[in-house]
This record gives sequence, C-alpha cells and structure tokens, in this order.
Amino acid sequence: MINITLPDGSVRQFEAGASGYDVAASISEGLARNALAVRVNGEVRDLHRPINDSATLEILTWNDEAGKNTFWHSSAHLLAEALEALYPGVKFGIGPPIENGFYYDVDLGEGRSISPDDYAKIEQKMLELAKNKSRYERREVSKADAIAYFQEKGDPYKLDLLEGLEDGSITFYQQGNFTDLCRGPHLPDTANIKAAKVLNVAGAYWRGDEKNKQLTRIYAITFPKDKELKEYLHKLEEARKRDHRKLGKELELFAFSERVGAGLPLWLPKGTALRERLEQFMRRAQVKAGYLPVVTPHIGAKELYVTSGHYEKYGADSFQPIKTPNPGEEFFLKPMNCPHHCEIYKTKPRSYRDLPLRLAEFGTVYRYEQSGELHGLTRVRGFTQDDAHIFCRQDQVKEEFIKVIDLVLYVFRALGFEDYTAQISLRDPANKQKYIGTDENWAAAESAIQEAAQERGLRTVTELGEAAFYGPKLDFMVRDALGRKWQLGTIQVDYNLPERFDLEYVAPDNSRQRPVMIHRAPFGSLERFVAVLIEHCAGNFPLWLAPEQFIVLPISDKYHEYARRVQEQLQQADLRGTVDERDERIGRKIRDAEMQKVPYLLVVGEKEADNGIVSVRRHGEGDLGSMPIEAFVRNFQEQVEELMNGRGTVAAH
Amino acid sequence: MINITLPDGSVRQFEAGASGYDVAASISEGLARNALAVRVNGEVRDLHRPINDSATLEILTWNDEAGKNTFWHSSAHLLAEALEALYPGVKFGIGPPIENGFYYDVDLGEGRSISPDDYAKIEQKMLELAKNKSRYERREVSKADAIAYFQEKGDPYKLDLLEGLEDGSITFYQQGNFTDLCRGPHLPDTANIKAAKVLNVAGAYWRGDEKNKQLTRIYAITFPKDKELKEYLHKLEEARKRDHRKLGKELELFAFSERVGAGLPLWLPKGTALRERLEQFMRRAQVKAGYLPVVTPHIGAKELYVTSGHYEKYGADSFQPIKTPNPGEEFFLKPMNCPHHCEIYKTKPRSYRDLPLRLAEFGTVYRYEQSGELHGLTRVRGFTQDDAHIFCRQDQVKEEFIKVIDLVLYVFRALGFEDYTAQISLRDPANKQKYIGTDENWAAAESAIQEAAQERGLRTVTELGEAAFYGPKLDFMVRDALGRKWQLGTIQVDYNLPERFDLEYVAPDNSRQRPVMIHRAPFGSLERFVAVLIEHCAGNFPLWLAPEQFIVLPISDKYHEYARRVQEQLQQADLRGTVDERDERIGRKIRDAEMQKVPYLLVVGEKEADNGIVSVRRHGEGDLGSMPIEAFVRNFQEQVEELMNGRGTVAAH
Repeated sequence: MINITLPDGSVRQFEAGASGYDVAASISEGLARNALAVRVNGEVRDLHRPINDSATLEILTWNDEAGKNTFWHSSAHLLAEALEALYPGVKFGIGPPIENGFYYDVDLGEGRSISPDDYAKIEQKMLELAKNKSRYERREVSKADAIAYFQEKGDPYKLDLLEGLEDGSITFYQQGNFTDLCRGPHLPDTANIKAAKVLNVAGAYWRGDEKNKQLTRIYAITFPKDKELKEYLHKLEEARKRDHRKLGKELELFAFSERVGAGLPLWLPKGTALRERLEQFMRRAQVKAGYLPVVTPHIGAKELYVTSGHYEKYGADSFQPIKTPNPGEEFFLKPMNCPHHCEIYKTKPRSYRDLPLRLAEFGTVYRYEQSGELHGLTRVRGFTQDDAHIFCRQDQVKEEFIKVIDLVLYVFRALGFEDYTAQISLRDPANKQKYIGTDENWAAAESAIQEAAQERGLRTVTELGEAAFYGPKLDFMVRDALGRKWQLGTIQVDYNLPERFDLEYVAPDNSRQRPVMIHRAPFGSLERFVAVLIEHCAGNFPLWLAPEQFIVLPISDKYHEYARRVQEQLQQADLRGTVDERDERIGRKIRDAEMQKVPYLLVVGEKEADNGIVSVRRHGEGDLGSMPIEAFVRNFQEQVEELMNGRGTVAAH
Repeated sequence: MINITLPDGSVRQFEAGASGYDVAASISEGLARNALAVRVNGEVRDLHRPINDSATLEILTWNDEAGKNTFWHSSAHLLAEALEALYPGVKFGIGPPIENGFYYDVDLGEGRSISPDDYAKIEQKMLELAKNKSRYERREVSKADAIAYFQEKGDPYKLDLLEGLEDGSITFYQQGNFTDLCRGPHLPDTANIKAAKVLNVAGAYWRGDEKNKQLTRIYAITFPKDKELKEYLHKLEEARKRDHRKLGKELELFAFSERVGAGLPLWLPKGTALRERLEQFMRRAQVKAGYLPVVTPHIGAKELYVTSGHYEKYGADSFQPIKTPNPGEEFFLKPMNCPHHCEIYKTKPRSYRDLPLRLAEFGTVYRYEQSGELHGLTRVRGFTQDDAHIFCRQDQVKEEFIKVIDLVLYVFRALGFEDYTAQISLRDPANKQKYIGTDENWAAAESAIQEAAQERGLRTVTELGEAAFYGPKLDFMVRDALGRKWQLGTIQVDYNLPERFDLEYVAPDNSRQRPVMIHRAPFGSLERFVAVLIEHCAGNFPLWLAPEQFIVLPISDKYHEYARRVQEQLQQADLRGTVDERDERIGRKIRDAEMQKVPYLLVVGEKEADNGIVSVRRHGEGDLGSMPIEAFVRNFQEQVEELMNGRGTVAAH
C-alpha cells in the first residue's frame, strides 16, 4: 500500500501501481471524468501511469494551466496524425503547446503548401480522428530502435532530435496510426478533444536557425467543448478589433516613423490630448495627495549610475553611453528616474519633520529592446512613467502604502477597471541573507504592506521569494474587458538606493538616520497604460478622457454659423469638440464621427437653430432626442461628475 | 582740399591734413568737446590724426560702442601708468577693452600681489595721472628700435609680442611716463577720464596657455563722469542681487548636481511649480490660438538627421551618437524638435484645407556646451523649448506671423516685459544665390514679415544679410529691468526642411505643393526664460506665477487650526500657499517669508480667529491691515485678472 497526499493535505491509501485516474475516481466520478493528467511529487504525468511509491498528488483538469498544456500537447499529436493522413510523406519537426493552443512545424514536401482554404479540411480530419478515442500509448524505446524507426519512416528532423538524446531516456507516444518521439505527458485518449481550429500558418527555420530549411508552422487550438471554441474565437475577433495599434491608427492617436526609429512613438494631436488629460488627472490627484512635482534631465553622467549601481548592469544589450568632446566624460539615457530624485533629496539637509517627501515626475526613460520584441505602445524603447519616489521614515511605510493604494484605486475607478487583485512579493524566509536591509526593517515593511492591503480590503496573492533584493513590493494585476491580465501599478519598498546615495535625515534625537524609499507608478508607463486602456474600452474612452467629447454636425452649410455658436458655448463650459463643416451629407458625417468614436454627435439644422437646441446622438446608443444646449451641458457634466466620484478617497496632504 | 562725407550724406571741404577734431569743431563746439575718436573710411583712428585724402567720416563719442572702446583702451594705458608708479618694475602683457571696461595682464614680480585693499590706491593714482591731461602720442617705430626699447626696459612679454609683428607696422603710444606697444587708436588725452574703479583681480596665463607663467589680470572700468560710475556700480550690485543662480538657490527653484552632470538642471518642487505654471499659461494661449500639442521622443535615428541635414553638422564638439546592440544603428539626442514634427506632418496626406497645421511641443533638447561656457540656467546642456512649427501655404505666412506676434506680445505683457524691439533679418540682396527657396517666395515672405510687424506697430530694426540661408526671421529683443538686452521670441520662416522632408499638400487644383514652415518659440527655452524672468523681477514673480502666492503665519500654535482653515479656503479658491507651523516667533516667520519673496503674508492670531479675518502683509509693501478672507480673495483675483488682461488679443482659431 502507498500513501497519496492530496493538495488539501488529506492522505489516502492505495495499492502500489494505482494511477492518478484511480485517485480521481476515489474522490468523485466528475473529477475522474474531467481529469486530464496528474502531478505526482511536482512532476506532470499521464493520468493512467502507475504510481509505485507514496507521493503527493494533484489531479489536473482543464482549469489548471498544466492540464491545458497536456490537452494542447496531445492535440498537436492529433494534428500531426491528421496531417499524415492528408499529406502522406509529411515530415515532422517539433509540436509544443503554447499560451493559447499549440503548433507543429512540418515539412510538407516539395511543392506542397497549406492555405486558409485547407484549414477546414484539417480541422475535420482532426475531429474525425478524435472520435476514434485512440489512446495515447507511452512506451520506452532504446535509442537504436528509435533511430531505426525514423530511418525507416524517413524523417530527418526526428533523427536530428534523437542525436541529442541519451539512451535510456527515450519514449515514444502513439495514438491511432501516429507515433511520435515525445517525453509526454499526454491525455488518456483523444475523446476529450471536441473542438479544433487551425489559426494560422507561418514559416519557421528548423531549430530557429536561418541556415536550416524553412518549415511550415501550423498554429491551432482545441477545446473540450465546442462552446469554448466559439467563445475563444469571439474573444480573438474582439481583441483584433480592439488592437491598440489598429485603433491608434484609426483614431489618429499615435504613429511610428522609420526615420525617427522603431519603438519611439510620435504622439499625434488627438493622442497627445488624451495623454495630457491622463497626466493632468494624475497630477491633480497626486498634488492633492501631497506629492511635489519635479523635473529632471533625460540623461545622467556615468557617476550617477556608478553610485546607483545601474552602471554595472549596462550591457551590450542596452543603449550605449553618450560620449562627449571631453575625454572620459560619458552620459547615459536615463532608464529610470530614481537616481535623479535621490540627487534632489540630497540638495539640502532633511529633518524627520520634512518626511515623507514625495517627489513626482512624469519622467521619460529609454531602454533598448530588440526590434523583434517591440509591440505598438506596450513594448517601446522610450516611455513616460508616472513616477514618484516617497522618502519616508520606517514608521511611515504603512501609512504611505495605504495612501498609494488609495491613489491607485482612485485611478482604476475613474478609468473603468473594476477587476483587479494585488500580488504581494515578500522575501524568501529561508534565504534572508540574499536581501539588503535589516531583518527588523524587512519584517516591519512586509507586515506594513500586508496590513495596508488588508485595511483597504484588497484581494491579495502573496508570493514568497518574489521580492527584489532591495525590498518587498505590491503589484496590481488588472483584468481588462476581455479577461486578459495586465500588471499595472507597482509599489516597491527600497532599502538599497538610500544606502548607495547615502541619504540621511536628522532624527528628533539629532542622530542621522536613513530614510526608506518607496517607488510607485499607478499607470506604470503612460504608453503601455494607454494601450491597455484603448483595448479595454475598445477606443470608447471614459467621457472625461475622450479626446473629442462632442462634434457638431450641421446638416448643411446654412447652419455652420449656428453650429459654431453651439461649439463655442460648449467650449466655454469646458467641453472639447469641433464642428464638421465638410461639404458632405449628414449620413456620411454621422458615420465618420461614429468611426472616430466621438461620444456625442450634435446634429443641427433648421429646427435646432430656430429653437436654440441640439439633436443628440450618443455613440453606440443612437438618438437621444433634442434638448436645449444648457440641458445637454448639465447632463454631460453630471455624467463626468459621477465617473470621477470617489475623488474624496484620495487623502489630502 | 579734400571732401569729407558725413554720416548724414552731407559733404564738407577741408584742407588736406585736417583732423577729425577739426571736422567735429566745424560742426559744433559740443561735438568737439565730446569727440573721443573718429571713424575714417570705416577705420577707427585717433581724433587728431591728420586726414590727407577725401573720405567718409564719423565722429565717435561715449555714445558709440567704438567711442567707448577707445575710451577704455586708453584707460588701460592709464591703469598701466598708475601700476608702474605704484609697483616699479612691473611687466606688462596685454590690456584690451572689453564689454564693460577693460583689463591689463601684468607680472607684478616675485612676492607682490594686489588685494581688494589696494584697489582704492590704484584708482586714486589713475585719477591723479588723468588730471595731468597727458596726451596719447602716437609714433611709428622700427622693429629694431621697438625691441631695443623693451629690452632696455626688461619687459619679456612685449618682446614676445614683438616677435609676431612685421617691421613697418609697429606703433608706440605714450602718455605721461608710460609708453606701450600699441596699434591704437586712443583718446586725445587723459582729461576725459573722470572716474575709475578697479573691479576684480584674477589669474591669467600668458597667451592663455597654462604652460606659460600666470599673470595677474586686473579688471577695471572708467567713465567720463563720476555719476555714470555710481550708476554702473549700482546696476552691478542690483545684478548681483538678482543673479538667477543666487536667487534660484535661495528660493529653492533649481539645483545642479555633479553626479547628474554639469549644465543639466534639476528642477526642485518650487521651480517646477513655476515652470509648470508657465507651461500651462503658454499651453492655454497656444490652444486658443489653434495650436495642436504633440509629444515626440528625445532621440532620433541617424536617418532622421541625415534627412534634415543636421547629421553633416554633428561634430566632435557635440554629444556623440548613441550606439545600440544592432551594428550600424545610431541614435542622437535631439538638438531640436523640427525633424520630429516634419515626420508627424508626413503621417497622413494633407490638403490645402488642413493648413495651417500648427504643431506645438514643450520639447526638451540637448546640445553639448563646453563646461566653461555653462552658466546657471542661461547656458545649459539640456533645455525645454516652447516650440511649435506652423506648416502653412505661402499666402498664409503674413497672417500666421501676425498671430505669432500677438502671442509673443501677450506673453510679454503677462510677464511684465514692456521694453522690446523687433529685429527683422532679411536676405543680402546682393547675394541672392546664397539662399534656398524661390526669389518670389522670399520676396513674399520678407514683405509679409515687414507688414505684419508694421500692422502690430512694432519698433523694428531691419538687418540685411542676417537671414538664415533657409528663410527670413524676426527676433524680439527685450530690455529687462536693469536695461540689459535679451533675445527672446524668434519667428523663423523655413523653405529648407519642407524640401528636405519632401513635405506636400494637395492644392485645390489637385497639384502637389510644398508648404512653408515657420519655427517659433516665444519663451525660447524655458530654462533661459526663467533665468531672465528671475533677474528681471528679482524673484518677485508676477502674482499669478508666484510658486507660493501666500503663506499663513499663525502667531502661536493655538492658531494652527484656524491657519489651516484659512489655507484650505484659499486653496478652494485656487490660490497656492502653505501654513508656517514652525515653533518660531512671528517676527522670524515674517522675515523668512519675506526672504522667500512670498507675495502675501497672512498673519493670524486671536483677533483674526475670532472674527474670521486675516492681517495682510504685501511683500515689499508692508502691512495692508486686516480684512475678511473673502475680501482678500476678491482683491487677489482682481489683481491677477488685471495682469492677464489683454488675453482677448490672442486670436482664436
């Protein structure tokens, strides 16, 4: 008999050789039905593989990442089986699971290719084969036998892979007519695969080396239910429509230019209006919360980064130093704002009464990224952080943390992010020597963070060992409208820079003490935040933030003058908008304004001009009828007010 | 007889050999008395030197720069004579006039030095010698005789200078007992020198080479009237008190750090508040005037500057390129914003209807300056321009110029600059081939600028040949409170960049046309502007701009609560200020607040708390009595309103 310890800590006894399936079945029939694989002593294995010794065990289903991976890995084998049926003689490279689905790299053979027209045929074949409920059979083979098998089959890629493997560690998996060189694990059989979709086909060099042959990489995804595939495809389509690169172009928010350089966004007028509005919003909230804005240069001398410790980390993969006519003099594009802020702290002696000192800057920083890694505004080479550094006493850490949390939550609320959790990263208690700062301070800071999160009722996940060497932190993980997770808003304690910059304050007893530093950026980077925001709201920005809040559409040039008067009156009331004076039909003007996602379309013609009213259309909602201009303004302002509600929660200085 | 042509074009006849003095005397006795030197055919000469041929002639007085130069050059000789009397055996280097006064580099001899205590003695000796009315006698000498003279006198520096001179071109000037190797010209005699002041003593290597001996450089200044010296010294003292580097430190506006790098200002919280306020002011005025804010990165790829033509001009005296891991890839710190804005222009096709397109950016640019040339905020290595580029049609140049002039004048008015002229720089009409752009466009642009300046009633100076090769321009020259001139606000037409970037718009006839570009920056650089503003208003910023507009001073901690209530009420009304809650006597609090140049000091004690009033002190004016808080706010707002008056002159879009 062996002891099987389950995740809840309970222990069950089984005969040696029992499988994960047996354990699942002993718990419930449903679990046995949904079980895809099993984790034994931390290792993921086939569900039916016998367990011979006592172990900890976890049943993996579709809801576990490892369960999904197994599902998709097995689906890659199913895709291969389908391809072999459809394209006899096809050769196989590798076929791993990925974040969403899986791929297989294949050599179709001279003159053959796969086009989108072929996708349905492949999907059908996969589902047809899946219905056979073929078992995924694992078998250990000698290297010689394995080589013999693929030599006979004539598959050079598998033979190439085999060269790197050691005898005694080689396994084959077979389902139906398809056998693959594979470490596994896999599903019990193909029956669970109920929906399949080929997503995309691309070229990929064998082993990623462009000197090798280019294979065909086939991306696909599978699901245990057809409904889940439909949901996934819908989400994919939504994500495509919301892609900030696409909307950024359509709404004329930002652009890139080869000449200026990849990853260096040019903010166009409408994007700049949006960006400035976000900055203004944050600036006000921060000033209310006692932050002091500062401005520092975008470069710093080598000495600054030697002091901060960043100099050692500047590598060949960074922007290189900027030399000057003065030999030995070197400047660096600043990759972060903290060293500059430490120098501001040092411009005069500080007393315990001056703390907390909260220095804030919309600081643009530059970091080199490989061009292949650049992606719209989410991965750039220059970005502006809504950065601030709080210099405080150790006994102020908790209160400061609470204030920052309040600020972050205020931002999330005003921007319509409602689904978030906080991840708290603490020391590895078993490895305390890895961290800078006294044990006492760490313990105090860690409990300060935990208490602050608790007092603000945050849903938290705590990760041991995930703290930086210089201090614990709290990250906000936000789920957007499509359910995708983004890390926004980091609050990081730092015991390192105050040490390196020899920062001090005079304590009540006249002794010199080190302040604690807290780094924090609610947006993170403005660029990335705008990207997330665009995708979250599909370009329909919260009313207060919309670059253009209204557009007046005169039905003909007879009403241009009235239209301009309407616009001026709204502008006086601090609403932003323009008049469409183009010589176009009203239908076209409405369509274009809807395309531009302008929240309010104000149509004006004879009736409106005569009565001093506007006919109002709300983007996405349609006609709201006509109303006096004043009523429109009042209604508008009430809506904005409501969105910004909760402003009171940002604590005053 | 010879013909002498005077500056007004009139011609007078004299006998050959007549002097400038004779000409002056023939015009008026006063002119003859004030004449210091004479300009003959463009060359400045001694007043009494005979004129043998017909010539154009200009009498130079203290009011001419060349007249002053002669005065100070002769004064340097007088200083030398005085030094020789006081420090027998002193050796002389060179002694030229400079912008304000003159200096002489001297070798006092082993163990001798000059301290501030010696200044009065030197000044007295100078004036004593001046009273002798010694004539400055010019005489031509052979090189051999010159060498013999200084060998006998034992002056190695003059001998060193003689080495570089050609025989036949050498002249001596002698006044009293002092003879100098000198090209002249000089005053007729020492009688005009009525006031003298030694300003400063510094070390200076002979011929500026640190391998040579270090001489003593004595700076001094002289005047024809004692009153003028007094005025000068007063102005000097005022300038010292207003030095923006001194006030910047005292008012905690900005700081420099060795570690961040020389010439790279750190804007402290109060300076940032000031700067943000200026930016906000300009942003609003610009948006009203139809500008569209944009944001671009602080670096650009090499290709951008190859296109703009700046690449060719990047020399060894610039910030060097930023290399990356990608071989051949190079970025540059941007030295100006225009290339980036051209790329924004190119992000979509433009029609004649889209013009003018006015792209504005508070763009921070970086330019390398030698460390010796750096000076506070006026000469830095990184600065933010209130930059904008107007892309317009040729027929829109005049109107755009007028709008920019209006904007600049609005800025000057709001900031208290009342004394300015406009310098218009045009082509050299004799050298038209030097300039890019068609003759027709140049003629149109030049008259557009002149007409615009005239329509706005500007006092103008027109300089032919001072235009850039790519277009004519208009600069505003502003006189500050101390009468010093500053160049602020440039408006520059550009035919070059539209060509280099191949910018186009579609004309009504569907042809493709080049837009004209206008560069303009009313402040110029925010850094330099703030420096000028600090010195202009001696740190007493216009009320609307003051970093701290009021400070509440409770007379003891019993009134802290009331003080805070006052502050909150004022903050609600958008006034900026704090409470001084330090445990200090009220006298000390008032003194400190006056030092910080806070415009309004609000003292509160029992009487004030009981009656809901404040006792108001205005900086520099003293006690204004007590008043209800609302009355103070009203009064304050009216003052700001008045300063900002004329806002209506900034044309709306």
